[in-house]
Amino acid sequence: MQKKLPLLITTGEPAGIGMDIVLLLAAEGKLQDFDRPVWVTADATAMQKRADELIAAGILEICPPWKTLNANDATIIEEDFLNQMSQQNINGGTVNDDNAFILFNIPCAAPVVCGKVDTNNSSMVAQQLQIAHKLAINKTVAAIVTGPLQKSALIDADIKLLDGTMFSGHTEFFMQQSGCDKVVMMLANQAMKVALVTTHLALKDIPAAITADNVRQTVQIVIDDMREKFGLTQPRILVCGLNPHAGEGGHLGTEEIEIINPVLQCFINAGIDISEAMPADTLFTPRHLANCDAVIAMYHDQGLPVLKSHGFGDTVNLTLGLPYIRTSVDHGTALDLAGRGGASATSLYQALIMANEMANKSLVN
Amino acid sequence: MQKKLPLLITTGEPAGIGMDIVLLLAAEGKLQDFDRPVWVTADATAMQKRADELIAAGILEICPPWKTLNANDATIIEEDFLNQMSQQNINGGTVNDDNAFILFNIPCAAPVVCGKVDTNNSSMVAQQLQIAHKLAINKTVAAIVTGPLQKSALIDADIKLLDGTMFSGHTEFFMQQSGCDKVVMMLANQAMKVALVTTHLALKDIPAAITADNVRQTVQIVIDDMREKFGLTQPRILVCGLNPHAGEGGHLGTEEIEIINPVLQCFINAGIDISEAMPADTLFTPRHLANCDAVIAMYHDQGLPVLKSHGFGDTVNLTLGLPYIRTSVDHGTALDLAGRGGASATSLYQALIMANEMANKSLVN
Repeated sequence: MQKKLPLLITTGEPAGIGMDIVLLLAAEGKLQDFDRPVWVTADATAMQKRADELIAAGILEICPPWKTLNANDATIIEEDFLNQMSQQNINGGTVNDDNAFILFNIPCAAPVVCGKVDTNNSSMVAQQLQIAHKLAINKTVAAIVTGPLQKSALIDADIKLLDGTMFSGHTEFFMQQSGCDKVVMMLANQAMKVALVTTHLALKDIPAAITADNVRQTVQIVIDDMREKFGLTQPRILVCGLNPHAGEGGHLGTEEIEIINPVLQCFINAGIDISEAMPADTLFTPRHLANCDAVIAMYHDQGLPVLKSHGFGDTVNLTLGLPYIRTSVDHGTALDLAGRGGASATSLYQALIMANEMANKSLVN
Repeated sequence: MQKKLPLLITTGEPAGIGMDIVLLLAAEGKLQDFDRPVWVTADATAMQKRADELIAAGILEICPPWKTLNANDATIIEEDFLNQMSQQNINGGTVNDDNAFILFNIPCAAPVVCGKVDTNNSSMVAQQLQIAHKLAINKTVAAIVTGPLQKSALIDADIKLLDGTMFSGHTEFFMQQSGCDKVVMMLANQAMKVALVTTHLALKDIPAAITADNVRQTVQIVIDDMREKFGLTQPRILVCGLNPHAGEGGHLGTEEIEIINPVLQCFINAGIDISEAMPADTLFTPRHLANCDAVIAMYHDQGLPVLKSHGFGDTVNLTLGLPYIRTSVDHGTALDLAGRGGASATSLYQALIMANEMANKSLVN
């Protein structure tokens, strides 16, 4: 059987637990659970050192096997190289089932010390994302699974986004690289999938961000991606109101009447299986969730506490609206745990499972 | 064994399911589960008619037994009458274990028709609350358990609160009657207890309501009531921030730094087991909830969706800060179900269990 396109993991901040959790899964053989190869962006020297540290700490028994692909800084993001990678993969040439993963070597500028973030290595972190984007947009990989990065380190190193603004996160990076005006953050676990109209905004700034355009674009992206990336022909979507009790007929806020419901009514009229604005404390009960493929919440703390209360470690972060599949771990760099044990690879494993399932169901792979 | 002080149920809107759910519990013998008598405010004629309707509908097999105490309109809220009630109860004279409950007859002005709210009966609904308050403040009953009322019917009938403003709900009614400046809404089920700093406000109005005074008073009431009404000497309390990620060090809002944490720090300094502002999507995970007696959320949709997702039917509404115990069902009048079956008495039963447990642990009963 010919292998399918790979899943690509970016290990992110080298001083954090990104490499640790790859090694943990590799040692348990879990990176071979998929009918796809797993590629990993990291510094090869740092990866070997991390494996040695985890063995010394009694966390790993032996170093899991991997195969390293080298590319020097100059050529690593060149189209030729990527085409060659793609070709190798399609021919099955780079995949050896004895190896747990393919290490895509991106050298660090400075030696990596566990727990010590070095801004000299920030450009290597950005390079991982750049390569991930190119591999995904060229369909060399089926999906990107991102490990944690240290946002402040990229800002301190003056890493910019394409539009010249300061680096602000994976999502904004991939969005600008892909030329998207709008993407949607979705969190998912066994219990539910929740997409957000607004994400990281102070509470006082939320109402102004609930515009008809924003709601419409969010809903459209959720519908499109549930179809294209989850293979659901007619996704069933429930939407929270902005206000408690969804505004209670205008007594507790008017955004439902003036903004949200008119937008939702257009989708309903077009035959989409979507609710009007519902009270959040009714929507998230088992009776409603049982008949719903995705929930759209208006803001972070309306949707995520309830989702994470039903499975913190299993939660996967997805970006909808990109031209490719991107999932992410739902934790930070945990600098104090790097190289020492104590890091859990559950979230990375769940992010891989989700990426793999989406890749298998996707209409675009 | 001498019986303890009774639990008092107000059936609320007579056209709704308030009487139905009392009858359902009575028929199952569940009102005799407590080592206290249960008193019920309702119109005796309407209660008998409702029982007959539920028998005709095949919901009840037989009419459960109760004992009716009559008092005419003029005397029903007179101190003499209440003292007499109290005396009867202390002597055990009004309690007969063959009866499921004591019906405290408060006549309706107009005949009760299932599902048809009649504003002529709104004053009877208000009278139930008036009597409940008097019985509780005089320690004639141990706790009030309120059934659902139809707020709009009381407003349409021009029922006013003590301060002359329009009737706006049970909580405001009891608060004003008790001379309290501030009470706290808490919802509770098997999974968690969540108190709210703000309750029914449009989202845009929340930030202005998060003042140091409001946070301080809310925390103090939660501490006092966890001690006095739940018998916890050193309650463990976790507090949500207002903003996502609890403001992320000021990047996502400054209320945590400027308002919430300084207040919480005073309580911490005073030896209270309380957290600083925590990200809501971290706080509501099993790891944190396992070591916490109560959560304080800043607003409705931050705390209640997660709570209700873990047990909608079992959720009980409590009012903290009153000089007596008050629990409530967590549902509305369900007018379409009155007299026809389909109403669930689970919430009323849970509200009774909670009221009984609190009465048993309370330092003030």
